Amino acid sequence: MPSGVVDARARQIGALAALVHEHETAPAFVELVDELASRIAELTPAQAVDVRETKWRIDRVRALETALVRERSEVHAQARAVWIEARAADNFAALAPYLVRIVELERRVASCIDPHRAAYDVLLEEYEPGASTAAVAAVFDELREGLIPLVERLQGAPDRPAASGLRGHFPVDSQRQFNRIVSERLGFDFSRGRLDEAVHPFTTTIGTDVRLTTRYDEHDLRYALYSTIHETGHGLYEQGLDSAAWGTPRGAACSLGVHESQSRLWENQVGRSEWFWRALLPLAHQFFPAMATVSLTQILAAVNEARPSLIRTEADEVTYNLHIILRFELERALIRGDLAVADLPAEWTTRMRTYLGIVPPNDREGVLQDVHWPSGAIGYFPTYTLGNVYAAQLMRAARAALGSDVLERDGGLSALLEWLRRHVHLCGQTHRAPELIARATGSEPTCQPLLEHLQQKLRFLEAP
Amino acid sequence: MPSGVVDARARQIGALAALVHEHETAPAFVELVDELASRIAELTPAQAVDVRETKWRIDRVRALETALVRERSEVHAQARAVWIEARAADNFAALAPYLVRIVELERRVASCIDPHRAAYDVLLEEYEPGASTAAVAAVFDELREGLIPLVERLQGAPDRPAASGLRGHFPVDSQRQFNRIVSERLGFDFSRGRLDEAVHPFTTTIGTDVRLTTRYDEHDLRYALYSTIHETGHGLYEQGLDSAAWGTPRGAACSLGVHESQSRLWENQVGRSEWFWRALLPLAHQFFPAMATVSLTQILAAVNEARPSLIRTEADEVTYNLHIILRFELERALIRGDLAVADLPAEWTTRMRTYLGIVPPNDREGVLQDVHWPSGAIGYFPTYTLGNVYAAQLMRAARAALGSDVLERDGGLSALLEWLRRHVHLCGQTHRAPELIARATGSEPTCQPLLEHLQQKLRFLEAP
Repeated sequence: MPSGVVDARARQIGALAALVHEHETAPAFVELVDELASRIAELTPAQAVDVRETKWRIDRVRALETALVRERSEVHAQARAVWIEARAADNFAALAPYLVRIVELERRVASCIDPHRAAYDVLLEEYEPGASTAAVAAVFDELREGLIPLVERLQGAPDRPAASGLRGHFPVDSQRQFNRIVSERLGFDFSRGRLDEAVHPFTTTIGTDVRLTTRYDEHDLRYALYSTIHETGHGLYEQGLDSAAWGTPRGAACSLGVHESQSRLWENQVGRSEWFWRALLPLAHQFFPAMATVSLTQILAAVNEARPSLIRTEADEVTYNLHIILRFELERALIRGDLAVADLPAEWTTRMRTYLGIVPPNDREGVLQDVHWPSGAIGYFPTYTLGNVYAAQLMRAARAALGSDVLERDGGLSALLEWLRRHVHLCGQTHRAPELIARATGSEPTCQPLLEHLQQKLRFLEAP
Repeated sequence: MPSGVVDARARQIGALAALVHEHETAPAFVELVDELASRIAELTPAQAVDVRETKWRIDRVRALETALVRERSEVHAQARAVWIEARAADNFAALAPYLVRIVELERRVASCIDPHRAAYDVLLEEYEPGASTAAVAAVFDELREGLIPLVERLQGAPDRPAASGLRGHFPVDSQRQFNRIVSERLGFDFSRGRLDEAVHPFTTTIGTDVRLTTRYDEHDLRYALYSTIHETGHGLYEQGLDSAAWGTPRGAACSLGVHESQSRLWENQVGRSEWFWRALLPLAHQFFPAMATVSLTQILAAVNEARPSLIRTEADEVTYNLHIILRFELERALIRGDLAVADLPAEWTTRMRTYLGIVPPNDREGVLQDVHWPSGAIGYFPTYTLGNVYAAQLMRAARAALGSDVLERDGGLSALLEWLRRHVHLCGQTHRAPELIARATGSEPTCQPLLEHLQQKLRFLEAP
């Protein structure tokens, strides 16, 4: 975004947000939804889902007075701008007053929506409807206690020249073709989407047009490949939604956590596995002949590298969830009033030391690294780890349903996609995330499959 | 655009078009505009411009019944799809029935807007408000008679290895940097815009954010450079509009012809001149060291290459306007009923032979080459040549006002931009195109400056 047009773009976004809000809260529409909700027993199950979810969303929106909505969006816009400067200057004090206001505002928002429940519960539901703080905390506590010993083992392990397998010279044009074919092999339909480039990879859907982005590093094949697979996972979910229900809750993604489960399943459960790479090797050799000298074991070591690090977005699969759990605990304490904004940096450091055994040398690489809190997104972080938890559960269930060696055979990827389509994609918002996961996997959200997956990975990494 | 989402995108565009139409014709808004128009004498001159242009636009819109608007947009959508196939298959007969309907529909549209004037006059004004068919035809007739002898001289001239000066190896990354600096030197403000890549270069403005695109050919520097300069010309106009009048006619571009005059002025009058290249050479040598062996004369020969060709969008500066005049004459005859759609291909061939001395071997490289008619855009083509006509007039006037050697000196480009800002950009729609040009140049639209510019170019090309 050119710097000189940021204000104009903010006004455009504000104008569109006001239009959306106007339509969402138009009396004629709201009255119809209320009327339908009062007669929900007369509806078909599909209609009932649409009415239930629409009413739930509208009730949250209309609980907020316009003045509060405006104040909130102004504070977020200011805080984001301050955050950019504060991060660059490593100056937490500059951001702190804005975080204080954001915490207060989010408490007020939660209290307007439902004064009878804990504020964090209400905020969490914005991003993960149906999830409760207690249930999430139970899963995260168990996961944290399981992960800390794994991280300690990582720290004890000797450094191996693991990454060398996928470092070298990989011309960007070849990578573009290679990544497109990989995305296609996973099942992405390029007649209804594209793969382009962006500084920060993301996926966006315009109607039914799914746009993936990735980014290339000429010297490291992993950089683009795992962004592409991750975004393809999001894209497969979007393309797999029920097109007959387009524009309604039944045709929309279930939650942020479930969305992330789809990207993580393909990225981590599939994309870093031995069977996936065994099938991918001929294609990789075709585009990058020098890879012929790299063994499968070297490749797997490279794509499964793990060590504690400071920056969440660069964290590996083993350590990533501890970054999230830390943020979940801190933001929950902020909202409850158990932690003051001024004490955030110290508390951040303490928990980094306890969970990951390392401490950031400054706030830039610590509490200032993420845009979420300055954007007012409190309750968002847990959805990342819920995605990892769901992904491991879904992968185990799919494997059990399909038979243990189906994935390793030709057509395994499309069998997996087919299973996900039926048990996740086509369901839309028919069930909320915890129930969707329970129906698909036979178990409420639990971290056991994820922990076992990571333990197995660690055994591989520790093998001589 | 991925092929599988074309229908969905068409529905989205339709929904937005309906929203715009709803707002434009909302009774409360229309009544206010009518009221203001009836009291125009009480307004400031600036307010009067906004009311005059807004009322003129609304009157055109509300003259059309919704059924006609819908039929028209459906026919255009169908015709464009048929055109893609028809062009690929070189099958004019497949497109012909759609063109027959489009001609009928445009006649009806014109008659709804103003039944008392010739239909083509009414259609032309959609794209070039204030222009009359008679005035345009007078300029074009004179231009055609002046150009045909120039084209004959081109055909008689011996082939020279002119292009070799800018063919070779020009790495795309270096070109990206080079083109950005060129755009910046012309005055484009990158804090309020970007230069990106697209298959078909274009410029679009989102609020105040001006996005230019270009395309690179590693083997020919001209390919990107002249797209970039052309689009920069459009971008400078957009960035030069009166920001205090943003969102009103006074802060909007005057017409398509005036917009094209800005792109053509920088592309042709500036970008192919000796003085521009003299100043650009050090930069070119810095990015492309091999160019040090190419003389300025060779470069000028390469960027001013001219010869009759079949495809409008690839035509050079000398022959381009004959492509447009041919289309203007044919579409005017279609609307008047002097030419049947079935006779279009034959008439196309006849005029190509007369004007350019060459004939297309098929309709694909003839009457099927442009998307305009299948899109229902009748009256659009003339704005391209009006742009060239205006550009030559403006350049001559600017040179006269600034002093004959100002452009050749340091700061010449910014003096020229400053002059254009004052005489064109900041005026917005204060005057309609013919009056804007008359005020800026002291003369109604006339082809003499353009003809003299091209005659001078031909003398250069014919020099031994």
